[in-house]
Amino acid sequence: MKKTFVLAPDSFKESMTAKEVCEAMEIGIKRAIPDATCIHVPMADGGEGTVQSLVDATGGTLIEKEVTGPLGNPVLARYGILGDGKTGVIEMASASGIHHVTKETKNPMITTTYGTGELIRDCIEKGITEIILGIGGSATNDGGTGMARALGYRFLDKAGRELPFGGGFLGALDKIDTSGVIPQIKNIHILVASDVTNPLCGERGASVVFGPQKGATPEMVQTLDQNLRHYGEVVKAQLGIEIIDVPGAGGAGGLGAGLLAFTNSNMRKGIDIVIEYTQLKEKLHGADYCITGEGGIDFQTKFGKAPFGVAQAAKKVDSSMKVIALAGYIGQDIEVLYEEGFDAIFGIVPGAAELETLLAQGKANVARTAESVARLLK
Amino acid sequence: MKKTFVLAPDSFKESMTAKEVCEAMEIGIKRAIPDATCIHVPMADGGEGTVQSLVDATGGTLIEKEVTGPLGNPVLARYGILGDGKTGVIEMASASGIHHVTKETKNPMITTTYGTGELIRDCIEKGITEIILGIGGSATNDGGTGMARALGYRFLDKAGRELPFGGGFLGALDKIDTSGVIPQIKNIHILVASDVTNPLCGERGASVVFGPQKGATPEMVQTLDQNLRHYGEVVKAQLGIEIIDVPGAGGAGGLGAGLLAFTNSNMRKGIDIVIEYTQLKEKLHGADYCITGEGGIDFQTKFGKAPFGVAQAAKKVDSSMKVIALAGYIGQDIEVLYEEGFDAIFGIVPGAAELETLLAQGKANVARTAESVARLLK
Repeated sequence: MKKTFVLAPDSFKESMTAKEVCEAMEIGIKRAIPDATCIHVPMADGGEGTVQSLVDATGGTLIEKEVTGPLGNPVLARYGILGDGKTGVIEMASASGIHHVTKETKNPMITTTYGTGELIRDCIEKGITEIILGIGGSATNDGGTGMARALGYRFLDKAGRELPFGGGFLGALDKIDTSGVIPQIKNIHILVASDVTNPLCGERGASVVFGPQKGATPEMVQTLDQNLRHYGEVVKAQLGIEIIDVPGAGGAGGLGAGLLAFTNSNMRKGIDIVIEYTQLKEKLHGADYCITGEGGIDFQTKFGKAPFGVAQAAKKVDSSMKVIALAGYIGQDIEVLYEEGFDAIFGIVPGAAELETLLAQGKANVARTAESVARLLK
Repeated sequence: MKKTFVLAPDSFKESMTAKEVCEAMEIGIKRAIPDATCIHVPMADGGEGTVQSLVDATGGTLIEKEVTGPLGNPVLARYGILGDGKTGVIEMASASGIHHVTKETKNPMITTTYGTGELIRDCIEKGITEIILGIGGSATNDGGTGMARALGYRFLDKAGRELPFGGGFLGALDKIDTSGVIPQIKNIHILVASDVTNPLCGERGASVVFGPQKGATPEMVQTLDQNLRHYGEVVKAQLGIEIIDVPGAGGAGGLGAGLLAFTNSNMRKGIDIVIEYTQLKEKLHGADYCITGEGGIDFQTKFGKAPFGVAQAAKKVDSSMKVIALAGYIGQDIEVLYEEGFDAIFGIVPGAAELETLLAQGKANVARTAESVARLLK
């Protein structure tokens, strides 16, 4: 009987996109079972690679656009439009990510999410009505005010002057001017992909928890936390929206809060969004096996990584379906995953080697390992 | 239904003995299938590890003995007595191997197999009647004359003086004196484990093919080849035994020839001997799966390596039995093995790492990989 494999890996970072992993898996499987049916469902978890995978999974398109980077200088960003033609997918990091700053230039006092707002605006101008927005990997701590400015919001001090970019200046916020907001903002919905549950302010807030990795000194952390609290109070007073203590508001330097305050949005776990938009469960119906994978797999995989979501989905569709994961790196305590829907986890590395070599030969190693898995299953 | 796994790996060199690999495999399998039956059959191919594996597989004993090393100085060697109490197993390299010389001291003109003969003699004195002798890894080129001397043969020049050790002096051989040969030599049989088919002399002979790796210069190679030919002629003239052109006579610097000339012996492939003495086929009867493995697996595995012999044996016993191999290093073109009885081949390496690290964590990596294999099969 013909066997059907659903291939639903995340990307292997710095080595292969999720789609390329699917292709390598199919090569190996077909060597073992030439008439196997392989359904490619490139996955992601809302972080890096989500745009690529959702575009690949739905037959969508990638769009490049020059926008304002986190330091105010132009950067080339990328977002996607899914195959349905009406859903946009953005990774905030593409416009406002930490990779756009250096050790020397990173400074969460002045970095802005303005470029992320420009991408949202570009989607709107293309008639997009639903935007999936992944908010990991930010260089910013501006509460999403930069993003809001790109949509027409103005953040003014007591003298009515617009504040400079960055969370460092929000202490002077006096008034949020909504008069210039683009009208289409009311008609779009933003689905925020975030696994972060931190509030905007306080000990678990954006500045204290994530500020240091963006370059904040202890003094900056204090200033930024105070500024975001003041910002939250102004939002509450003038817009009637509570953002300070909302779980998830602290994601991406408070971009989560900004999205709550200024857009029609809600937040879901990245992997759940990806599973829905790739129609993974529908594709798993009637399949014999599910093969997932990621560059690295360890016990943390169960905290919302793509292979975890895939394994759970597969078992929900058919509790007897075998789920096999391939990984370039297998870390500690993977046994816990065997209680979470995984049946087997294989490393693809052929022997002692440096990372660089392994990254370059990823496809051959995935194909070889998938072949052995398929040979065992046939 | 209870599953039975036959675990028949070779050693993972510098990391685990074959028995230790079996133990690690069982740990992994039992994590997946607690009531699985695991039959340990530590394997070897006649080379390094053969004594250890045959002793482990049969419940035998290891014996240490100080003997004459290849350079004439004492070395501590080791051989085994199998569980039957009447079969000895010797690796010639333990007494006369290349690891006993250095880059500076290696010199096939003077190295001797005398220590190997001492081990044979020690077996005889213990009442052993059958000796399995693995002849890989030698430092010698003496045609097995050293080995024969330890059994009482004397190699004399025209003046009746005993020749010094080493192939470099065999050109002066005039007479082989058998008057002092120990009488028990007639009652023992030596089963020589060798995959080498080279003759004693000529272009494919011991000196030309294997001399250089033992330190022979081009001039030495010429001398050694001439000397071995002269030696062969003397043997033929005085003992009536042809050794110059016999396939396998060139193994271990002509030790193969010496064994033919001076002992009651025959030659077989190492893996075939190991399979017979471990009773692998009997143990495979009724098993559900066979797991083999070796430190390194590549297309050359099919040229007589242990996993190849295991795979062939398993398929002969039951053509539908799945054979899975684990390896610390997977090399080129393993696809050819899929036509030779292997069903699947998995690497055990968890990610980018240096060899030293991997050698130290071999057991955990074998156990983890065996667990995933067993989880797929259950």
